[in-house]
Formats: sequence, C-alpha cells, structure tokens
Amino acid sequence: MQELRVGRIFSCATNAQQCIDVVSRNEMYFAVLPLVHPRARREFSGRTERSEPFTRSDLTLPSNIWSSNVIGSLSPWLNFDSPCHKVRMDSEQALKQEMAWAHHISCPAVIAPPPGRSCNNYARCLYSQIAASGGTSIYVHMPLTWKDDPDSDKDPWETWNSVRMLCEHHFCLFVALEVTSDLPTDETLTQWLCEPVKLLILPTSIFLTNTSGFPVLSKRHQNFLRSFFWYNVEVAVSGRPRHEGGLLVYSQYLQHLFSSRTPLSDSERFEQPYWDFLQIPLQPLADNLESQTYEVFEKDPVKYVNYEQAVYLALIDLQANFGFRQDPFIVMVVGAGRGPLVRASLRASERANIAIFVYALDKNPNAVVTLRNMRVTENWADRVEVVQSDMRDFSPPVKADILVSELLGSFGDNELSPECLDGAQRFLRPDTGISIPVSYTSWIAPISSSKLHQEVKAYNDVKHFETTYVVKMHTHKVLSDAQECWTFSHPNREVPIDNSRQSRHRFQVKRSSCLHGFAGYFDALLYADVHISIYPETFSTGMFSWFPLFFPIRTPMFVGKGEEIELQLSRCVGDKKVWYEWAVVAPSVGPVNNVNGRSFSIGL
Amino acid sequence: MQELRVGRIFSCATNAQQCIDVVSRNEMYFAVLPLVHPRARREFSGRTERSEPFTRSDLTLPSNIWSSNVIGSLSPWLNFDSPCHKVRMDSEQALKQEMAWAHHISCPAVIAPPPGRSCNNYARCLYSQIAASGGTSIYVHMPLTWKDDPDSDKDPWETWNSVRMLCEHHFCLFVALEVTSDLPTDETLTQWLCEPVKLLILPTSIFLTNTSGFPVLSKRHQNFLRSFFWYNVEVAVSGRPRHEGGLLVYSQYLQHLFSSRTPLSDSERFEQPYWDFLQIPLQPLADNLESQTYEVFEKDPVKYVNYEQAVYLALIDLQANFGFRQDPFIVMVVGAGRGPLVRASLRASERANIAIFVYALDKNPNAVVTLRNMRVTENWADRVEVVQSDMRDFSPPVKADILVSELLGSFGDNELSPECLDGAQRFLRPDTGISIPVSYTSWIAPISSSKLHQEVKAYNDVKHFETTYVVKMHTHKVLSDAQECWTFSHPNREVPIDNSRQSRHRFQVKRSSCLHGFAGYFDALLYADVHISIYPETFSTGMFSWFPLFFPIRTPMFVGKGEEIELQLSRCVGDKKVWYEWAVVAPSVGPVNNVNGRSFSIGL
Repeated sequence: MQELRVGRIFSCATNAQQCIDVVSRNEMYFAVLPLVHPRARREFSGRTERSEPFTRSDLTLPSNIWSSNVIGSLSPWLNFDSPCHKVRMDSEQALKQEMAWAHHISCPAVIAPPPGRSCNNYARCLYSQIAASGGTSIYVHMPLTWKDDPDSDKDPWETWNSVRMLCEHHFCLFVALEVTSDLPTDETLTQWLCEPVKLLILPTSIFLTNTSGFPVLSKRHQNFLRSFFWYNVEVAVSGRPRHEGGLLVYSQYLQHLFSSRTPLSDSERFEQPYWDFLQIPLQPLADNLESQTYEVFEKDPVKYVNYEQAVYLALIDLQANFGFRQDPFIVMVVGAGRGPLVRASLRASERANIAIFVYALDKNPNAVVTLRNMRVTENWADRVEVVQSDMRDFSPPVKADILVSELLGSFGDNELSPECLDGAQRFLRPDTGISIPVSYTSWIAPISSSKLHQEVKAYNDVKHFETTYVVKMHTHKVLSDAQECWTFSHPNREVPIDNSRQSRHRFQVKRSSCLHGFAGYFDALLYADVHISIYPETFSTGMFSWFPLFFPIRTPMFVGKGEEIELQLSRCVGDKKVWYEWAVVAPSVGPVNNVNGRSFSIGL
Repeated sequence: MQELRVGRIFSCATNAQQCIDVVSRNEMYFAVLPLVHPRARREFSGRTERSEPFTRSDLTLPSNIWSSNVIGSLSPWLNFDSPCHKVRMDSEQALKQEMAWAHHISCPAVIAPPPGRSCNNYARCLYSQIAASGGTSIYVHMPLTWKDDPDSDKDPWETWNSVRMLCEHHFCLFVALEVTSDLPTDETLTQWLCEPVKLLILPTSIFLTNTSGFPVLSKRHQNFLRSFFWYNVEVAVSGRPRHEGGLLVYSQYLQHLFSSRTPLSDSERFEQPYWDFLQIPLQPLADNLESQTYEVFEKDPVKYVNYEQAVYLALIDLQANFGFRQDPFIVMVVGAGRGPLVRASLRASERANIAIFVYALDKNPNAVVTLRNMRVTENWADRVEVVQSDMRDFSPPVKADILVSELLGSFGDNELSPECLDGAQRFLRPDTGISIPVSYTSWIAPISSSKLHQEVKAYNDVKHFETTYVVKMHTHKVLSDAQECWTFSHPNREVPIDNSRQSRHRFQVKRSSCLHGFAGYFDALLYADVHISIYPETFSTGMFSWFPLFFPIRTPMFVGKGEEIELQLSRCVGDKKVWYEWAVVAPSVGPVNNVNGRSFSIGL
C-alpha cells in the first residue's frame, strides 16, 4: 500500500452524489454514508405498510461507487440491549433491513454503532447477520476510551472482546476504532494492534493547530497512527472541519503522516509477504529441499557470518590445544546443502590461517550436484570431499575435529537436530571433537492474535489446531516475556540419550487479554560467545532464516488482569516420530493438545 | 441390575488364582489385582534388557476370568508429576507397559493411583493411553477427602475435574471413588453423583461394629452408598478384614444394603430405560405421530386427570356466566390424537352435568381413523364431530367456548404451541372463549453432567452441540435453582402478535462445578388453579409425559465457588421456523449457539 486511504464520515447524507463529490474534491477515497436516514426510526411490529421508500434509491450512485468508495453506517438509534423488548425487536428488524440493503447495493462493509457496556444481544444480532449475509463485513465502532466514563474499570477492549467471543472470532467482524483526544496507556494502545482494526475514525476535534494554522496531531497520536500504518488500516475523518482549508487540510496532513511512517528494514521487507502466513514446518528427514528454498536461506546476512566466526574460534582453540599438527583439521559439514557452511568453514580456515579438510555431507542428491560442481569451479578439490549419504548411514574414513550443522528449526529442536546430531556425533573425535552448534535452547511466550486464530480456524478441524506453524507473526501481541523451555547440548555423552523434555510455565499477564496460543523461539550457542537467536531478548538483528513457531489453542481464553497463564509443554519421542503436546492449565484448564502426536509429528 | 457387584482389592497378588478363589469363597464377583508386583519398580532409561518377566504369566488365569472378573491396578509408585525428569519418564514407560499388558490379557479396566495436587502430567499420560488404547478404561482413584489434609481448600473433586478437562471428558475415563471415614458435606457428596463413578472403594477401616459384632456403616455412609446404587456402580473392599467372619461379612452386608435401597416409583420405573438418553424433540407440525407414541403418552396418570378437572372448572364458570343455555357448550380439541382429551372433556361434562358438543380435530389421517371408530364404539355420535384438518386450515361452523390442546413441549413453547394456538384462536368466541391451557411459563437451570456432554460430543460436530434434546436427566446435578424465562398466554389478543422472547439469567453457584449446559422445564396453567408442571418446584408428581429439555454447551466451563453463571437465551421466530439461541456470558464468554437456527429449528 503506497497511499493511505482516507475517507469522510457523513452523519447525514440526503444526497449521496454530493457526498461523493465532497470526498473527491478533498483528495479522499471513500465516504461513510448512513444506509438509512439517521432519524428514520422505523417500527416493524406494526402492521401498517408504508408506501414511501425507507431510504434513498440505489440509483443515486453508480454500482462501482457503492462497491468501491462507500462504507455504510447503520442507524445510530439501534439499541439491541434495551430493557424494552419492542426496542430490541425493532432494532433487530432494522439491522436486518439495512444489512440486506447494504448487500443489495454491493456495499462491502458497514459500521455498527458502538455497543453499550451490556453488549450480549448486540453481539448476537451482529453474529446473526454476518453468519447469514453474503460476506458484508461489519466494523464495530469502538472508542479508545468511553466518553462518558474514561476512568471506567472495564475498558472498551473488554467490550470488544466479549462481542467477538460471542461471534466466535468471525472473519467478517472488524473494528472501526475511534481515536479519542484522551489516549489510554501505551499498553492499551498496543493491544489494539493485534485486533482486526480496519478503520481508524479521527474526529476533527482531536486535531491541534500548528503555528501556520494547519491541523496536526499530538506526538502520541502521531505515534499511535504510525504504528497502525503497517497494519493495512484506513482512516476516516468525522465531525465538522475546524481549520481553514476545510476537509482538504486534514486529508493532506494524514497523507503526510503516512508518508513519514518508519520505513521497513531490509529484513522486514523480506518478511513482509510472509506476515501472518502459516507455514507447516519442514520435515527435513523426509523431504528434500528445492534449490529455491536453499537460495532464500543462503541469502541470510547474519547466519553464515556467525557460523564462520564460530568455526574460526573453534580452530584457534583446537590449534592452541594441539600445538602444531601436520594434518589439517577435519571439518565435517552434515547437511551441506548447496555449500554455504562449507564456504563459511573455508573462510574461517583462511582467516585463522589454519588448514582444514572438509567433508561435505548431504542426503539430497540434487544438492550434491551443486556441491560437486563447486568443488571444481571454486578450486576445492584438495580441501573438500563431497559425500552423498544420510548422516545416519555414513562411515567416515577419519574422525572429525569439528562437526558443523544447521539443522535448527524455529523452536531449536523441532526439525530433529538433537536426534540427527546424536547419530552424527560418532564421526567426532571422542575427546576433543567440537559440535557447532554447541547447544540450543527453546523459549516460549503466550500471544494474542485473532488473525492467526482465524487462519487456523478456517480449516475447520481439530487437527489444524493441534499443529504448529512457522509464521512471521505480525498482527499479534506477546502477552508476557518468553520463558526458557529446555536445552540440548552436543556432543551428548549421556548413556542412554533421552531427548524427551518437559517444561511448565507460569506467565504473568499485565492487562486483560485474549490468549490464542504461544510463540516458540530458539537461541543457539554456535561456539564460544557466538550465538544465533530468534528469541526476542537476544535476537540476531538482520537474520531472517527463521520465523517463530506458533502453538495454537482451540478455544481462545480470556485472561483477566493480574491472572496467570499456566502452560505445560512436552517434547515426546516415539520410535518413529517426535512431537509436542501442550496444555493450558490456567486461568482455566484446557485439553492436552496433540496427544500421542495424533495431529502433527515430525518423522524420524 | 438385581445384584450389587462386590469386589476385593488386593494390594499384592503373587498368586492370581488364589485371589480369585478368595473372591468367590466370599461371595464376591471380582478381584482388583496389581498388574505388576507393586515393588517391581522398573527403569526404562537403562539399556540393560532383563531376562526375567516383568509380571506373572497370563496363563495363571483363564481368559474369561481376566476379562470378566479382574480389574487391574497400576503400580502405586507411578509419579507422573515428580520434579525429577527420570522418575516422570520411568512412570510414563511403566504405565505404557502395564496398559499394554492389561490390553493383552483383555482386562477391561485398570485403576490408576490417586493423582497428586499437581496432576497435569498425570492427566497427559492417562490421556495418551486412553486415546491410543484398544478401549481399556482407566478408573482414576479419587478419595472423598485428602487423607493428609482433609481441610484443604481445593477438594479432590477439583483435581478430578482438572484431570478430565485435560483428557477432554474422554468416555474411557472414570472414577474409582474411595469412601473415607470422614465424609465431606452433603453438597460435595451429591456432586459425585453426576460424575462417571464406576467403582466405590470401601476400606474395611470405615466400617463400624454393630451389637452382634458385624460390620455396618454409619447412617451417612449408608445413605451415600444408597444414593449411588441407582448409578450402576460397583463396590470393592480394601484393607484387611477387621470383623469375625472375614471378608464374607462385608460382602453380605453390602448386598443387604443394596437390597434395601429405595425402590423406584411407578413413574421412575417407566423412566428408567430413558435415563440420560438423548431424544431429538418432536416436530409436531411436520411429522405424524405413530400409534405407539400416542399409546405411551395416553398412559400418563396425571395429565388427563388434570385436563378433565380444568375442563370441568371451565364449564362451571361458563355456565355461571351464561346462566341456562339451550345449546351445549362447544369444545374444540385441537390435536385430538387418539382421543384422550375428547374423553377427558366428556368426563368433565358428565361430572359437571353440563352438556357439550366436541369437535375433535387432528391433521393425522391415521389418528382420525381411531377417532371415527371411537365415535361408533363409545357412542359419541351425538356429542362428537371428528374433523381431519390442519388447525391452520379448518373453518368451523360455530365458534368454540373452550379450545383444548396439548401442544406443549418440555420447554413449554418448544413444539410451537404459541404459533398453533394463535392460529386456532379464531375458532374461539371472541369474548368468553377459554383456552386450556390458559398460559405456560418456561424455566431454565444450569446443570453439570459429563455423561450428557459425552453423549453429545460423540457426534463429533458443532451441529449436535447446537441442538436441544429431550432427556430424562439422571447422572447430573442442577447447579442453581431454575429461573423463569417467559410466559405465553391464550387467547392472545395482542396486535400484532410477537412470539419472540428473550431472557437473561444470573445463577449463583454454591460450590466449584463444571457447567455442561442447561435444563429447560415448563409449568402450564390449564385453568383456574389446575397446573401441569415439570418445573421441579411445582412438579406434577407421577406425570411422565415430559422429560426436561437439554441445552448443551460446546466447551465445559469451570465455575469457581461463588462465581455466577450468566446466560442469554432467545426464542427467535422467522418466516418458516422457530429456534432458540443461547450464549453463556459468565464466568467466561462463550459463543452464541445456534445462531440463525443454523443447527436446529422447529419448522412452522
């Protein structure tokens, strides 16, 4: 999105074409128009049939304008939670009539008036419409703070949360967030970033005036808007213009603000197409990667630099231990792919001025073609031996001094690095052999993301809720700092080796939230002090090879302020597969997910 | 079940055949035998393979004895929630081994040692087994009070509830409830009646000694056992015999206690085959009932007596109003079926000595055959006219003084009595016409019943969780007094008539519970002070024509002590159908169930 879509909210629109003219004259993109005149309060329980139309004709605008440049607004008098049965019933009938009309004129979305503190029937009526309708979205108008009672204990987010829980996180339900002049705490503001906010409503009354007389927003308001600009949001101005230049100066200011949003870094630009896109983790033992996949990951600007540094430090230490040695040090790269770790090792050797001989091992016959070609083109013949073999079957002619691998998944061990390296460590010199990585630790944090929940729910089965996904989480919020799960170290001299793990976590949550699952990360120690990490606290800036792992839960769980989320996590190892089981046990007890790896596992 | 199945718990059973001999010598039915010697603590993480067997041979008993007269018990040392990883892993492996062995010897169930206060991994390991196994049931050994800490805040039921929530209410998971000498409150005791308790464990130490030296239980213990005897429970004696006569006197005492259980009343005997059996409510407008169905309901000993009394009182009142009238009063029976209301009306007429003429209307051509035959055989020719017609189409030659119907469903209006009577009231004299029933009120109460939840869950779809069921609730607990929902009155002179209804309820819950849904009832005023009711407070004793209506919820909800359950209930009326929507909004917000009647509705 190169331009912000700015719109104008009309509280009354007797002449729709005039409104559209106003919009385009002020460099705006869309108009929010009442579907029915706001004072046209209809009664449905009477038997009298009125002959006059309940609203203006659809012919007042061409179809393509209705469908592209108009958002409808529902009547402001609708009151679904009135104590009076008749008011509730008339509201429900009017809603039905207006939604049917919106559908008829191909209006893609409507804005519903703000729910009251009591919102149960409001939610029911909305759900009834989106469940039945032909895909017309409903934006729930939510203010950032309650106007009548800004210090209310239950903040607007909680009301919104009740509405969407009653509507089962329906994918046609969104928020039109009204930015108020009083802003709540930053904590509250960021909470809205993980919600499906489609529209920001900006009343003209929240704008200040700069020295030149133009409308500007306060710094906090600016920052809040800027943070939203990467979330595909539109903006609409409400209220009468209060600055010279009319509406135009508002839309120009907002475009200016949009163009000054923080640009994406290189790695963010790389990641952007993957935002909130669920990927099933690789099954590296079962599948062969494609060349394109290798190519993407080889471009990581951090990973192989760090690997090179790790090999470099390991070689220095080895030489310090051994003193002078006639033979070169043996480096075995297991899972060499198209050679990036071979290259990194050779660079380290040159930099340290310590000779090495590399065995480059891969089970993928296609990758081996590349490696064997490189051996020729890059003059590796005397320094590199290419072997096509599964590392579980290979019998090397010599023992290795360094075993280099990159078998880590987003959660560290989730692509079976422990099992692979346990098998490969027999290549290593028993006393002095070094594994790079030396160890890796898994981390986990609770998150809120209705977006990811909806993505999983769309599959409409339990299986997909019991699967973990690699995903660049964008529309989400981490509810509490990540905690350490477990660590694997290599070589592993335990007898017998037990790679099953269990961890229990208690996360404090700062404010009322909706739990949708957990994000998994890893931090790997390559060697000495060289790490690669996607755990947020130690994140290797610029590295883009790994996105976090998402552990969903089936039923989103409300977590009250000050309550704890308690998680039990297990890495289970069977004869033929490895899998995770996870269960939330607080604030309420959920089911054990993926018991026996029934829905998702990684084959051994 | 004419006899109580009593068993013996052996904490050690080196010779299985000897145990079986003890059991039969003491007039018992089954033995609980350790699957593996309780001190045979095995290690699985070592590599050494032991050559000796881990347990006695299956050949020590014939297959039919293993499968019919033995319950296995798992090793007492299993500790799934130990802080030590190795203990947890060994426990999990041992569990797997013992469950496989139980399956191998066709042992239908095993008893798991009591969970600790921390039970999350305990539940995970059990779930893993029941999800994978060939149907071997697991009974979780739960004491009524914690021995070490009887005053603990979190009572054993809460631990059990966590276990079964983690195991998703699996149908192979049961409770073996150990009756302790200290009994908790009655409230706690009755809570166990709605749980899947398969076995009561009675330690000999809880028995007292009567004046003849025989073992007896305290009155409270007796009552507790008696209340369980209608829940298909078995009983097992543990501990060494403490009375002369050895084990035999215990089993004889228990049989005696069983035979002295409160016998079932007539209506209970009628209902027993329907206990906890889900029935889809009738669609009376769409379906024709079968003769057999009519026959069952005609046997109700209360309903038609009350109808007769209502007609009797109505006739008396009419005559008082009209004074002497030449013509008989016109009674129209809409939905006459095989004639019980015609009969009741004629009886009332004779008793009051007031002449009537009856129009017996039914849309079912098969029922009309019966009615026309009756007209001959019962000499009704001058008093009864039989009309085959849908009451929506019928044009009667005269107006009725009394309109008698029995269109009520379990929840009152749920078989569309309001809509039918609104249509039929045009037969009625506009000023003095009387509808029997005059009005009816719907009532609702929150209930806990893992049994009913499992029955619905077995369908494995959302649709069945959004359906209401007629069910004689047996294994259940009403968590709070029923509350009134709404009332319909007839004739209904409103213009226009609106039969949609909404109600909101807040139920106080006395102790921690698991909410599985709601029970719906009705109370109908037939005429004057004559009611028929299945609402517990005013229940028409002996009436068996209606079982309550069950509104399930998808995700069972834990309700803490003192917390409130909040429910929103709607009766929705569309052009072609009527349906209910229900949503729990506290203690946590669930989805709106059956929105738009998408899963279940009653056709108009």
